Amino acid sequence: MKQRQLFVPTLREVPAEAEAVSHRWMVKGGFIRQLASGVYTFLPLGRKVLRSIEAIIREEMERAGAQEVLMPALQPVELLQQSGRYDLYGQDLFRLNDRSGREFALGPTHEEVITSLIKQEITSYRKLPVTLYQIQTKFRDERRPRFGLLRGREFIMKDAYSFDADWEGLARNYDAMYEAYHRIFSRCGLNFRAVEADAGAIGGEGGTHEFMAFAESGEDIIVSCEACGYAANLEKAESAQATSGDMTNSIGRQAESYLKFHTPGWKTIEQLVESVGCSAGHIIKTLIYMADGQPVVVLIRGDHEANETKIKNLIGAEVIELADADTVLAVTGSPAGFSGPVGLTAPLLVDHHVDDMKEAITGANELDYHLKHVVPGRDFTAHLTGDLRNVQEGDACPHCGKGLTTARGIEIGHVFKLGNRYSGKQGASFVDSTGKEQNFVMGCYGIGVTRLMAAIIEQHQDEHGMIWPLSIAPYHVHIIVMAMQDDAQRETGQKLYDELRSAGIEALLDDRDERPGVKLKDADLIGLPLRVVVGKSIVEGLVELKARTGTVERVQAEQAGSIIRDRLAQLSGTGG
Amino acid sequence: MKQRQLFVPTLREVPAEAEAVSHRWMVKGGFIRQLASGVYTFLPLGRKVLRSIEAIIREEMERAGAQEVLMPALQPVELLQQSGRYDLYGQDLFRLNDRSGREFALGPTHEEVITSLIKQEITSYRKLPVTLYQIQTKFRDERRPRFGLLRGREFIMKDAYSFDADWEGLARNYDAMYEAYHRIFSRCGLNFRAVEADAGAIGGEGGTHEFMAFAESGEDIIVSCEACGYAANLEKAESAQATSGDMTNSIGRQAESYLKFHTPGWKTIEQLVESVGCSAGHIIKTLIYMADGQPVVVLIRGDHEANETKIKNLIGAEVIELADADTVLAVTGSPAGFSGPVGLTAPLLVDHHVDDMKEAITGANELDYHLKHVVPGRDFTAHLTGDLRNVQEGDACPHCGKGLTTARGIEIGHVFKLGNRYSGKQGASFVDSTGKEQNFVMGCYGIGVTRLMAAIIEQHQDEHGMIWPLSIAPYHVHIIVMAMQDDAQRETGQKLYDELRSAGIEALLDDRDERPGVKLKDADLIGLPLRVVVGKSIVEGLVELKARTGTVERVQAEQAGSIIRDRLAQLSGTGG
Repeated sequence: MKQRQLFVPTLREVPAEAEAVSHRWMVKGGFIRQLASGVYTFLPLGRKVLRSIEAIIREEMERAGAQEVLMPALQPVELLQQSGRYDLYGQDLFRLNDRSGREFALGPTHEEVITSLIKQEITSYRKLPVTLYQIQTKFRDERRPRFGLLRGREFIMKDAYSFDADWEGLARNYDAMYEAYHRIFSRCGLNFRAVEADAGAIGGEGGTHEFMAFAESGEDIIVSCEACGYAANLEKAESAQATSGDMTNSIGRQAESYLKFHTPGWKTIEQLVESVGCSAGHIIKTLIYMADGQPVVVLIRGDHEANETKIKNLIGAEVIELADADTVLAVTGSPAGFSGPVGLTAPLLVDHHVDDMKEAITGANELDYHLKHVVPGRDFTAHLTGDLRNVQEGDACPHCGKGLTTARGIEIGHVFKLGNRYSGKQGASFVDSTGKEQNFVMGCYGIGVTRLMAAIIEQHQDEHGMIWPLSIAPYHVHIIVMAMQDDAQRETGQKLYDELRSAGIEALLDDRDERPGVKLKDADLIGLPLRVVVGKSIVEGLVELKARTGTVERVQAEQAGSIIRDRLAQLSGTGG
Repeated sequence: MKQRQLFVPTLREVPAEAEAVSHRWMVKGGFIRQLASGVYTFLPLGRKVLRSIEAIIREEMERAGAQEVLMPALQPVELLQQSGRYDLYGQDLFRLNDRSGREFALGPTHEEVITSLIKQEITSYRKLPVTLYQIQTKFRDERRPRFGLLRGREFIMKDAYSFDADWEGLARNYDAMYEAYHRIFSRCGLNFRAVEADAGAIGGEGGTHEFMAFAESGEDIIVSCEACGYAANLEKAESAQATSGDMTNSIGRQAESYLKFHTPGWKTIEQLVESVGCSAGHIIKTLIYMADGQPVVVLIRGDHEANETKIKNLIGAEVIELADADTVLAVTGSPAGFSGPVGLTAPLLVDHHVDDMKEAITGANELDYHLKHVVPGRDFTAHLTGDLRNVQEGDACPHCGKGLTTARGIEIGHVFKLGNRYSGKQGASFVDSTGKEQNFVMGCYGIGVTRLMAAIIEQHQDEHGMIWPLSIAPYHVHIIVMAMQDDAQRETGQKLYDELRSAGIEALLDDRDERPGVKLKDADLIGLPLRVVVGKSIVEGLVELKARTGTVERVQAEQAGSIIRDRLAQLSGTGG
């Protein structure tokens, strides 16, 4: 492609709204443009990268035995109501009515649609297993679309669904997909890790793993143990301390009863720590949640963070959220900041670490007062006890006891063992080999294709712009003619361009009438793997060859073509 | 692919709701399934055909210099309001609100989105021309979705948009696209014709052509002249008679004034013809329309059909529709069926052929009465006269005077010279070479990708099923092992399958435990180009080779692979 014709509107300024580095480079480099919040247009370079990613995904899906289909975005809401996701997704679901008033949703994923398809088409175990996938546009009305393609409202997903006669079959399909995901993300040049995860809104009776790309800008926390290989996301991660009876935070001898003391305006853990002179580990945080519409009280040690997924799982709730001020007042009799467990009637959900405290400071359920010398078990009784907190850097690994480390990551893929969750609710069954009716045993497997593109940039960039891995680069080689009015430069560039193209190498020829500085800046920004600069040294028969992050090497113009072919073969062989 | 694993749920019964032959075969052959009215899922075979069509389109778009982008389905309605299409599309537009109440439409096409993009990114003639295309899902809430993929509510389109500095540039881009469309449809094996068309709701100041695939099930009429090559769709087609002063339908001497006569219950042209004993050509049909909210009266000869596009164009209306009963009563003073032009005050729009009538029978604007001896010009005065009727088979060609023929067709593509229609309304301009601000001169170019798939089947099928052209067949060769329990048959089939696959030929191996009759019926239904039957004659070392519509030929099993490669090369060379 000749750059003069290519529509690649690079910008001089970094757009103000771009928070994530991938978003910044994609807008600056002319890869994408925003149409509305969380809704983007892919320009030619962006579309090309997407297509390369899609091609890799298709190859690996076919290799894993999955067959491509294409399901509609418009979904009759009756299907989502049947599965329960209509309410579960709530405002995240885009809804609309057709001209006759029938309600549709724009598909956030396609579990219900594919289950209803298979229910209709497969009646016998003889036709199983089957795995179907699609690369298709999804819609979710995110509360806070942000970070460009990392959290959009209209985005491309690869979603796959497997149907088996039994859990053994599902395990095989799950493993095949798990393996395919490893291959896909490796081929995209990503530094990633599969972690144990919680099934979340999509639900699942069996295991589930998230694939996380390491990135500073990631919204997720990856917890892992370098010693034994344990890895989980923060919602799911456990530590050995959770049940170990950690008594280190006692404050001396136990008093005979708790004592109310004046804490004027000291609403936060920080204020208490500073004013009382204790450590955060001596305080109990009392959090009021609404769980499926009912108030519950969660107790967490002051130096810990509550984990809402664990709270939800402990009580089997579908939706929980922090209670509003009115509810706090109704439940505790005092404003937020002074809540405590003593005397409350709402169910108390107590983290193990709180249970292990000898005595503690808590709110007094009275404005400007707290209690000290509160003893768990004596002064309040847990309704349920469990692991309700986020693990922390340095906690002991639940498997081997070594220290856990944490890192930020971007969720790029997710594999689920759904089991009968959808097939049961939708009445999707087949006749097994013994003549008995059984629900399909399902798995589902997603990759955020557009998000993957952003994650790759998060990992492959520097202060000058993007650095594309060869496998998904929009073009392989960037030929830059420094001065188009110079005949020798222009002709050498054109000749090399023709030679590479006829060898099947995708080359971009910068034939624009721009200043050399602009051309080199744009080249860094766009970040193609190999660059050839045809400049003044052409009088000596030389051109400059350079990998995007490598050093400049002068080579004979005549030999540039074959050298480039060798380099690309090397890069491609190393997956670079 | 082995058919045992392939998800291709063929049906024994033709589904009752399938009106069009392509719809019938696609459902029966397991290519598609309906999810909701006008909303379909593509199963593996259907998805594969789609991808082949998409690949051909991409190749030809790139060859024509167009660059691929991807725009969102969600469009802020402000853009459509600016262009006027928000009202124009009316109920055909799917609309929805996001969680903050902002209104979006699901894109029916993308003129406004791309115009706003280019407005923002291109400011100088130096960056022109540019042509961008996408293959993307469109949404239209059709009043009557039908014929399967021929008229759906969610469908795939290839839409391209060109931006030029002047009309000469547009003409070049338009010609390039016109040429690309010819190549695309030829490569898909279609019998088609480019016809002159009316610009319709999308609007356009320049020329526009529709590409029509000939098909009995088509909703459009193609008018053409075999003598000079003139071709147009029915909305646009003209005939020499339109302005020729055709006096043949006079009924003898002209009476001095019209005469009211009793026509009890004779509301239709047919009833009048039968009861009065005149020909339909002696009657004036009086049609009451609402044009942009105002009533107009249209007069058409009784043996002709009104052409709403021509009516709209004559008065420059955006929307017209036949008036309801109340309006007819208000405008004429009588119920429908007895309307006539005499004495009406609403504007009379008169077709040339009515203007040419010596005298005529019309309604009397009184229940159960008509008038005879009505003389145009004497008894009523035209507000406007023009060509307002559909041409008919045998009419004289407007260019050469020879007889026109008509045929049914499916619109598979459309190219428009839009000019400034969108760039003007959206204020999208650039600075030209003289420093003057100019609106972009635009063209737009659409192909209904999913509809194209249906049109191909409409032309390529017989009483047994589909007959895929090689270029888009889901697989090239169907290897059918008649009895899987027979070792020689099974092994020969497998060997041939391996051989073809390693030669890069897409083969489907029917390795199912089905009866031979079922296998052959399914093979006919799915319609792959070449078939190899491995059956009893394997004891003589022979297999049966057959094109989908050809005769059976026995060949040495050993040589089958190389013979098939030759045949495919031949087929591919002839575009078959």
